[in-house]
Amino acid sequence: MPIIAINDLILQAATAKSVERPPVWMMRQAGRYLPEYQAVRAQAGSFLNLCKNPKLAAEVSIQPYEILGVDAIIMFSDILVIPEAMGAELTFDNGGPKFTNPIRSAKQIDELKNLSRDEIASRCDFVFETLDLIQKQVDNKVPVLGFAGAPWTLASYMIEGGGSKNFENIKSLMYQNPVLMHSLLAKITSAVIEYLSLKIEHGAALVQIFDTWASVLDRDDYTKFALPYQEQIISELHKRHPETRITLYVNGVANIFDLMVASGADVISIDWRMDLAEAFKELKKLSGSRTISLQGNLDPCFLLGSPELIVSKTQVMLEAAKASIDAQHSYIANLGHGIIPQVPVANAKLFIDTVKNFSY
Amino acid sequence: MPIIAINDLILQAATAKSVERPPVWMMRQAGRYLPEYQAVRAQAGSFLNLCKNPKLAAEVSIQPYEILGVDAIIMFSDILVIPEAMGAELTFDNGGPKFTNPIRSAKQIDELKNLSRDEIASRCDFVFETLDLIQKQVDNKVPVLGFAGAPWTLASYMIEGGGSKNFENIKSLMYQNPVLMHSLLAKITSAVIEYLSLKIEHGAALVQIFDTWASVLDRDDYTKFALPYQEQIISELHKRHPETRITLYVNGVANIFDLMVASGADVISIDWRMDLAEAFKELKKLSGSRTISLQGNLDPCFLLGSPELIVSKTQVMLEAAKASIDAQHSYIANLGHGIIPQVPVANAKLFIDTVKNFSY
Repeated sequence: MPIIAINDLILQAATAKSVERPPVWMMRQAGRYLPEYQAVRAQAGSFLNLCKNPKLAAEVSIQPYEILGVDAIIMFSDILVIPEAMGAELTFDNGGPKFTNPIRSAKQIDELKNLSRDEIASRCDFVFETLDLIQKQVDNKVPVLGFAGAPWTLASYMIEGGGSKNFENIKSLMYQNPVLMHSLLAKITSAVIEYLSLKIEHGAALVQIFDTWASVLDRDDYTKFALPYQEQIISELHKRHPETRITLYVNGVANIFDLMVASGADVISIDWRMDLAEAFKELKKLSGSRTISLQGNLDPCFLLGSPELIVSKTQVMLEAAKASIDAQHSYIANLGHGIIPQVPVANAKLFIDTVKNFSY
Repeated sequence: MPIIAINDLILQAATAKSVERPPVWMMRQAGRYLPEYQAVRAQAGSFLNLCKNPKLAAEVSIQPYEILGVDAIIMFSDILVIPEAMGAELTFDNGGPKFTNPIRSAKQIDELKNLSRDEIASRCDFVFETLDLIQKQVDNKVPVLGFAGAPWTLASYMIEGGGSKNFENIKSLMYQNPVLMHSLLAKITSAVIEYLSLKIEHGAALVQIFDTWASVLDRDDYTKFALPYQEQIISELHKRHPETRITLYVNGVANIFDLMVASGADVISIDWRMDLAEAFKELKKLSGSRTISLQGNLDPCFLLGSPELIVSKTQVMLEAAKASIDAQHSYIANLGHGIIPQVPVANAKLFIDTVKNFSY
């Protein structure tokens, strides 16, 4: 049951209730562009240590709320917590995440744990403790968001061993052994369902599923390997937690926007390459009687520009939203992808303030 | 004036003349997946040495024609030949291209050479010698294609210093100093025009412009920083070489497909994330009285799959083309991006043969 926050703009927008202005937060808002984050991370010793230290993880989660005044706190964590809990050995270096033994064989997939709800609760206890700590410190002033990677995106990291350019290993496995691929995706799916369900029980007022890299699939494969698992997660969570709204994010949505809507998500989070006004137009054609909102979609690199550019690009986006929202479709202001480390804090704050000073 | 080849299917398709089957070639077909290429590259000592050795570059250019029976030979080279000729110091290691001093200041941009036609002819003499050698050896059996990087994509390599994930340096420069950015793009544009014009005079029967990474821009910035320079190149080449068709490639076209059509290109080369049938439908709405063809768009990773998968995915694509071509719109079979090193040669051959055995 979501906790009712004093500033519940984001929950209102996620259910297309009337709001005086768009709520705003930023993907990866607890991140390296903030000197305060860097200091805590240095204290933790490593990225993974920070994820696993509830006290410090709660501290960096709350920083953007205190420093920038965002309308939602997303708990600091990493989507790869789940693969690690399943038994895939994970490290982080400066180049990003690395799985020591990329998962590419039937034996390796078979050896990955089928995690029960209780096993997730204990193996990922640091995640739920972080959520509890954030709630306690924030005291319902603002909603706390939870998140998880979607099965295809998690599988891509596990199989590629880290980030990828061509995704040739996961595609190779998919094409040569689709049955094996589906068995891996199914295993991840059931873990993600329990993980997000537990996050909701620990107070996450809204959850976001990141299928960041599913856009490297063509429509046919997206329909086979990404969409069904998104659907399973969303429909099971809707069943268990009917009041909790679910957001789906993909990076590069223009060709699969309709399939994102078909996932059953309540909020569709889009990147900057799709025009927001166009996305609302498409959404209205596709939504039938459902209530669905959009989230996004400023290019994070705009925050490297001049103050004038940041304000004008943000205004264009907000005006498109203002002209598009209606009783079935609302809007949450955000970036089109995570904020990047090079962004000056003042620029991030200018983006947040520009949204907060806007009115419908 | 393009040389008339005995197998001129690709030139017919590029002008929407009636053909019995789609012509086929593959982006990066002279590449690492071929052991014969690897042997010659080892002999050359490095990638850049291979580019600059006309005899060896001609040899690897012709390999895919002899080994796979493609319908066009694209000359082996690299798009970064132009930035290097302008004075940017370039190396290649296993991670790809690296500019020793990424171009980020007004002084550096100012110091880049404004290359005259004669300077390009002499600084890039190895390129034109390679083209001449290929012509001589191929003896008009099949058309030879030329290519260049588009200004935005070349600028992105020069400014980032190599490949990039977020393109934060070029975007930073664009947003902070658009005038400076336009001056760099203009300088590159005039070099690319002369470079491609010389390639056409050296027998390139069709030229392809790669604006591979322009898709990381939103529509507004694509319209300002990518499209005008594509347009300038295409209109100037059309004026000077009215019989030569020009292809434009971007990786990730779904949100800017209409803008690619607006560039004036004769052939639009699309990636696999846009459905081919849908692309033809869009194209017909946009093309007016123009003759425009499509090229693409099989996911290169499909060539990692089973023979059955390769044949079936290729067939679906070919049937979509067959149902879509008309007197104004034809089709050239290709991948949606360059072939990747991991592809078995037999699989590449199966793709080529599947197209060659297809009939309209």
